[in-house]
Amino acid sequence: MDVVEVIAAKRDGHELSDGQIRWAIDAYVRAEVADEQMSALAMAVLIRGLSRRELSTWTDAMIASGERMTFTGLGRPTADKHSTGGVGDKITLPLAPLVAACGVAVPQLSGRGLGHTGGTLDKLESIPGWRAQLTEAEMRSVLRDVGAVICAATERLVPADRKLYALRDVTGTVESVPLIASSIMSKKIAEGTGALVLDVKVGSGAFMKDLGLARELARAMVTLGTDHDVRTVALLTDMSTPLGLTAGNALEVAESVEVLAGGGPPDVVELTVTLAREMLAAAGAMDGKDPADALADGSAMDVWRRMITAQGGDVDAPLPRSRETHDVLAPADGVLVRLDALAVGVAAWRLGAGRARKEDAVQAGAGAVMHAKPGAKVRAGEPLLTLHTDEPERFDRAVEAVEGGFDIAPDGARPPVDPLVIERIDAATPS
Amino acid sequence: MDVVEVIAAKRDGHELSDGQIRWAIDAYVRAEVADEQMSALAMAVLIRGLSRRELSTWTDAMIASGERMTFTGLGRPTADKHSTGGVGDKITLPLAPLVAACGVAVPQLSGRGLGHTGGTLDKLESIPGWRAQLTEAEMRSVLRDVGAVICAATERLVPADRKLYALRDVTGTVESVPLIASSIMSKKIAEGTGALVLDVKVGSGAFMKDLGLARELARAMVTLGTDHDVRTVALLTDMSTPLGLTAGNALEVAESVEVLAGGGPPDVVELTVTLAREMLAAAGAMDGKDPADALADGSAMDVWRRMITAQGGDVDAPLPRSRETHDVLAPADGVLVRLDALAVGVAAWRLGAGRARKEDAVQAGAGAVMHAKPGAKVRAGEPLLTLHTDEPERFDRAVEAVEGGFDIAPDGARPPVDPLVIERIDAATPS
Repeated sequence: MDVVEVIAAKRDGHELSDGQIRWAIDAYVRAEVADEQMSALAMAVLIRGLSRRELSTWTDAMIASGERMTFTGLGRPTADKHSTGGVGDKITLPLAPLVAACGVAVPQLSGRGLGHTGGTLDKLESIPGWRAQLTEAEMRSVLRDVGAVICAATERLVPADRKLYALRDVTGTVESVPLIASSIMSKKIAEGTGALVLDVKVGSGAFMKDLGLARELARAMVTLGTDHDVRTVALLTDMSTPLGLTAGNALEVAESVEVLAGGGPPDVVELTVTLAREMLAAAGAMDGKDPADALADGSAMDVWRRMITAQGGDVDAPLPRSRETHDVLAPADGVLVRLDALAVGVAAWRLGAGRARKEDAVQAGAGAVMHAKPGAKVRAGEPLLTLHTDEPERFDRAVEAVEGGFDIAPDGARPPVDPLVIERIDAATPS
Repeated sequence: MDVVEVIAAKRDGHELSDGQIRWAIDAYVRAEVADEQMSALAMAVLIRGLSRRELSTWTDAMIASGERMTFTGLGRPTADKHSTGGVGDKITLPLAPLVAACGVAVPQLSGRGLGHTGGTLDKLESIPGWRAQLTEAEMRSVLRDVGAVICAATERLVPADRKLYALRDVTGTVESVPLIASSIMSKKIAEGTGALVLDVKVGSGAFMKDLGLARELARAMVTLGTDHDVRTVALLTDMSTPLGLTAGNALEVAESVEVLAGGGPPDVVELTVTLAREMLAAAGAMDGKDPADALADGSAMDVWRRMITAQGGDVDAPLPRSRETHDVLAPADGVLVRLDALAVGVAAWRLGAGRARKEDAVQAGAGAVMHAKPGAKVRAGEPLLTLHTDEPERFDRAVEAVEGGFDIAPDGARPPVDPLVIERIDAATPS
């Protein structure tokens, strides 16, 4: 097979054959196809697109580059959730133990954050002692004993994606619906979950700013999951405002624990319960406990404590706190009508909660605490946000990020009401 | 500057700024921009195109990667010719001395062949002793003393093109009009010629099979030359049939010498004289000797002999001949109505006249001699072509290439009359 012919075919807008796609991805993993050839192919795919068949084969070929896990024999159905990433999106933390408490096992392979959206593993790693890296045997054992596990993917799971994603990241070929869909879904399918709920974020703080593109991505992923026998549902959810009142690592763990204790911000509770019900439904396990009850009766908190403990975490140890804080004050009396997710996300990132490069470390205590969300009354001179970091020289640029990121309107004003869940897409949704 | 932003801008169909283009090419030459990033950018350029301004800046940036030559002080105007490559296209060999004999200096930097079209340097290297590699001082001295020089470009001339072309060759990004135009024109502008005639080949044996694309390329190159103060004219010429009666290296040198001696195949003579007149006109030197006269009176031959001798060539030594020949016979009586340039080119290539990879050597004596051109009567069993090679095991695949590459019609048939010069494009041609 000649890689230049494969590249040229996609470049000229032709459909690739299954053989061409399988060969190209396999040869890329074996380094027979070079980085500069794959990046040219990725650019051609980004601009020309992939048909449903091509995308399915592309995803198969990615999965075939590594091992595929299965969780039969657990005695329980499995369900997982994937979020495309948002600001303050700590939902996985309360969600995984909550779903487990309702009788469905959650084998969640997560990632670290890059850019202004945080990563689930970064957040959990702020818990003293907690380990993200488990062997496959350890992962299975936590899943069997606790019902939920959140850990890093092994090197053997979709190595093609690890290599291709690193390439796309530096070659301007990330923003492709089929490439994003195959990257996410190859990992979720290889992970072996029986059901999958996708939380596709839309808005300023999301990767997809545009509803149309988010919908296209959601449909592509639901189709891929369905075609690979994973019962898949997608919710398009709002990410124009941060989720909850915290953006950071330890700050978000603390807020997640509040939710598990039956409290916490209403938007985080609403999204956690909504996604939990979708996961239970997709797993065909709606006859057990309702998620709202599992939050209220402490059973979700119980799973959380066992899950964290099983991975070395000390659930009773105090969470790390940043050494310095700085308040951003409300400049006027009135009603907060806008608090921009991207602005808060960039501020948290600049405070040290996120990383600019894969190699960077994150600060456990860094981030932003919001004292008001849209709709709340604020008074001039009172804190709107508190910024946290160990390095006070970071405050200036974080404050800069927040400036222009909120609007205060005169008393009596009402912010636009954005529903948290914008749209639901499943295999039956007409396209 | 962030290369991913530059790639993404072109990917999304935006115009790049002059600063972005200059930085990207400079950073690529310095290896700050990696191959996989430049190939993604090249693919985006191929699909999205470049505006006239972008193409001009891109070409400038390529030129700026190396040295720019000038030939003021020669006491004569300069003119050069570039062909996009064809089968049997030996025109440079008689043309350079012919134009010099008419009073215009020809500083011709040439290349080697890759694929089924031969390279001027490969052809000349079949002359015993002849050297393609000259120092700049040697080149200037031959040009001053003889009036014409054909040699290899130095490493210092447009290094960006050397690096970029090698990348495009393996990443499916060759077939881009702006990238081809900037590759050719950056070298010709940096070479310092005052006037330039472009021979843009169209047809089966050419890189551009399609007249529309060839025209687009010609216009782009004429615009680039004009914008850079090089008086530039393009002829679109037919390459559906090979030029002359030979395709190979020494075989084409011998045919070129016939032309310089006042004989040779009529199509080679016609194209040589037409291009020579264009070069003289572009150089503003139409009041000297007419090229047809310079062929007839031996003055072009005289320049040829001095030019070859000045580069170490022995003009009186016999040219190398292949050890083996094989005749392809006419299968029927009639009129040859089609002799396909690509078929003959591939046959000559497979016989050893060309190379598949840059590192390969070529055979000096290999190639094909045609005994008939379209319009000629042929008789069953008489040779249509004679194939030459040192390695008889190559005959089978060469014969295979020729099969289906010609048509013989009953006596009285006439082949379609394709004019040799299809179209002329200069700076005044409306686009």
